[in-house]
Amino acid sequence: MSFGENEKVNQQLFLKQVPTGIAGPEDFETKESPAPECGNGQVLVESHYFGLDAALRLIVRDSDEFLFRVRPGDLVRGTAAGRVIESKLSGYEVGEYVLASGGVQNYIACGPGELERCDVSQAPLEAWLGGFGVSGLTAYFALIKECKPQPGQTVLVNGAAGAVGSIAGQIAKLAGATVIGLTGSEEKCDWLVNELGYDIAINYKDSDWYDQLVTAAPDRLDFIFDNVGGEVLDLSLKLIAMRGTVLLCGSTSQYAQEEMRGPDNYIWLGTMRARMQGYVIFDYIDQYEEARTQIAGWIKDGKLKIPSFAFSGDVCDFPEAFKQLYEGKNLGKMVLKLPAAI
Amino acid sequence: MSFGENEKVNQQLFLKQVPTGIAGPEDFETKESPAPECGNGQVLVESHYFGLDAALRLIVRDSDEFLFRVRPGDLVRGTAAGRVIESKLSGYEVGEYVLASGGVQNYIACGPGELERCDVSQAPLEAWLGGFGVSGLTAYFALIKECKPQPGQTVLVNGAAGAVGSIAGQIAKLAGATVIGLTGSEEKCDWLVNELGYDIAINYKDSDWYDQLVTAAPDRLDFIFDNVGGEVLDLSLKLIAMRGTVLLCGSTSQYAQEEMRGPDNYIWLGTMRARMQGYVIFDYIDQYEEARTQIAGWIKDGKLKIPSFAFSGDVCDFPEAFKQLYEGKNLGKMVLKLPAAI
Repeated sequence: MSFGENEKVNQQLFLKQVPTGIAGPEDFETKESPAPECGNGQVLVESHYFGLDAALRLIVRDSDEFLFRVRPGDLVRGTAAGRVIESKLSGYEVGEYVLASGGVQNYIACGPGELERCDVSQAPLEAWLGGFGVSGLTAYFALIKECKPQPGQTVLVNGAAGAVGSIAGQIAKLAGATVIGLTGSEEKCDWLVNELGYDIAINYKDSDWYDQLVTAAPDRLDFIFDNVGGEVLDLSLKLIAMRGTVLLCGSTSQYAQEEMRGPDNYIWLGTMRARMQGYVIFDYIDQYEEARTQIAGWIKDGKLKIPSFAFSGDVCDFPEAFKQLYEGKNLGKMVLKLPAAI
Repeated sequence: MSFGENEKVNQQLFLKQVPTGIAGPEDFETKESPAPECGNGQVLVESHYFGLDAALRLIVRDSDEFLFRVRPGDLVRGTAAGRVIESKLSGYEVGEYVLASGGVQNYIACGPGELERCDVSQAPLEAWLGGFGVSGLTAYFALIKECKPQPGQTVLVNGAAGAVGSIAGQIAKLAGATVIGLTGSEEKCDWLVNELGYDIAINYKDSDWYDQLVTAAPDRLDFIFDNVGGEVLDLSLKLIAMRGTVLLCGSTSQYAQEEMRGPDNYIWLGTMRARMQGYVIFDYIDQYEEARTQIAGWIKDGKLKIPSFAFSGDVCDFPEAFKQLYEGKNLGKMVLKLPAAI
């Protein structure tokens, strides 16, 4: 396909096949086309950032069990943080920053139902895809509304250096709890303690990580905030405190497994009168604004950091960024930073 | 060993070895000795019934993780329902019926801490080991205090024909819910529906049991009352209703497994904002009397049946009765009925 000299080239990311193992570049396909027309009642958004979300691996499985399924041949689902470059929608001006839900591509023509305005004075644009977006709000409502940890209690965050975990641990600290993080490298452990204020961080790749956790939590774990599943959840369950809560926010270790495994130690829930509880951020949608005001205040007061980890590239590089997410390369939210953002 | 002509022979049951697979007669050992002396401040109890409890298989494992562990060489733990035949304890008369916690043997000398009086006008003696005892109270508090099912809601009972399940389903019906039972034979299915008033009973040995359950629960399952674990819990989790509750009362399918398995479908808790929750009857000990008054009223009014399934034999036959429990021979509570009861 050839384009006119001034025509905008729109790279679009499609799923090519159902991945086996961690999804890689071979499972996706990039096609180029002219940027879409901006219809009446629409804006045209130039994408600056996409968030990389482990749950994408879940929804590309060969299964109808999960919401938002993406099938081979489908445009990959995704929300861009970007800038309005053309507007035929009243109330939206050229130059405004928005989130646009229109799949992974450079240009998105969409209406008000797929748009959310980003006030970049509250938090930088890329943060709206991470710690100031769904990831951060997930951590916020999980801690503030579901868990409500108290001073003297101990919170374990599994997947502590990820998009959600990095915010969850900080909010648990703000609530006065003792916070332990489990993560996958020494570098991340240092970062959690020195940058984010975790009390203790443990590398789950250490062969004695469970013993370290036993030592770190002499009064057991009042809350386990789990993004990971697998062995990390399974062993940490043995340390749940009496009437403790395991809050399930994700199961990233299982999304790429052919057969997903549950935690064999679930019977500790019985012994300890504990609960393992699911939680979905969308139930709190009417409280997002209030939460963002609170989070923006913490940012302004220097009490909360919103870490983003940018992978620079174009839409065609999304699969590589996704692979690096699964390899645990990121500190905080992994985002793809597109050429337009630079 | 020889005994005098009028001397009472006391068979005592010891664990011989840590079982592999379902425990059988080869894992136990019966020894005979004279009946113990009744000391001051004690009563001597003649055992009439012992309850068979699947959790015994859990506590004979080679593991210190579970409370009340029984090791090879130990007298097997157990509570007798029996009669006081000698008393040196004020307030207890010869002829009274009691529960005596003193291990599996024909005669138990014990003090007030190991005794509980049985009012056999409320329920027959053997029922005090089952539906009017810990099994029934477990069902009662689980339904009345933890789950609180409402008319219009659907309750699934896994292990529906067992000691706890047979009472749980009836109490859920009394609360006005639709009640589905999962059990292991056609005979038990008929019994659940025709004798105990379950709305629907499904044989989990049918290859299409899950499809039957999908059909039986068009509005999904508000409560899963689980005694079983394993595949039955795992698949039923896929039908948990929005904000539903899985109440964990036991995991009988797992107690004899070398490696206990958790429910792989636990991630449905996330999708459905549901919870899986442990529960231990002993937390309600101060409410037992009130509960028994309520249950006795239901029995008297013909609203609740307390099914016992008696295996007649002596202490030495306990292992065979236990094996039959694991083979699912019982309708309701499996009890060993000793010669003294006849």
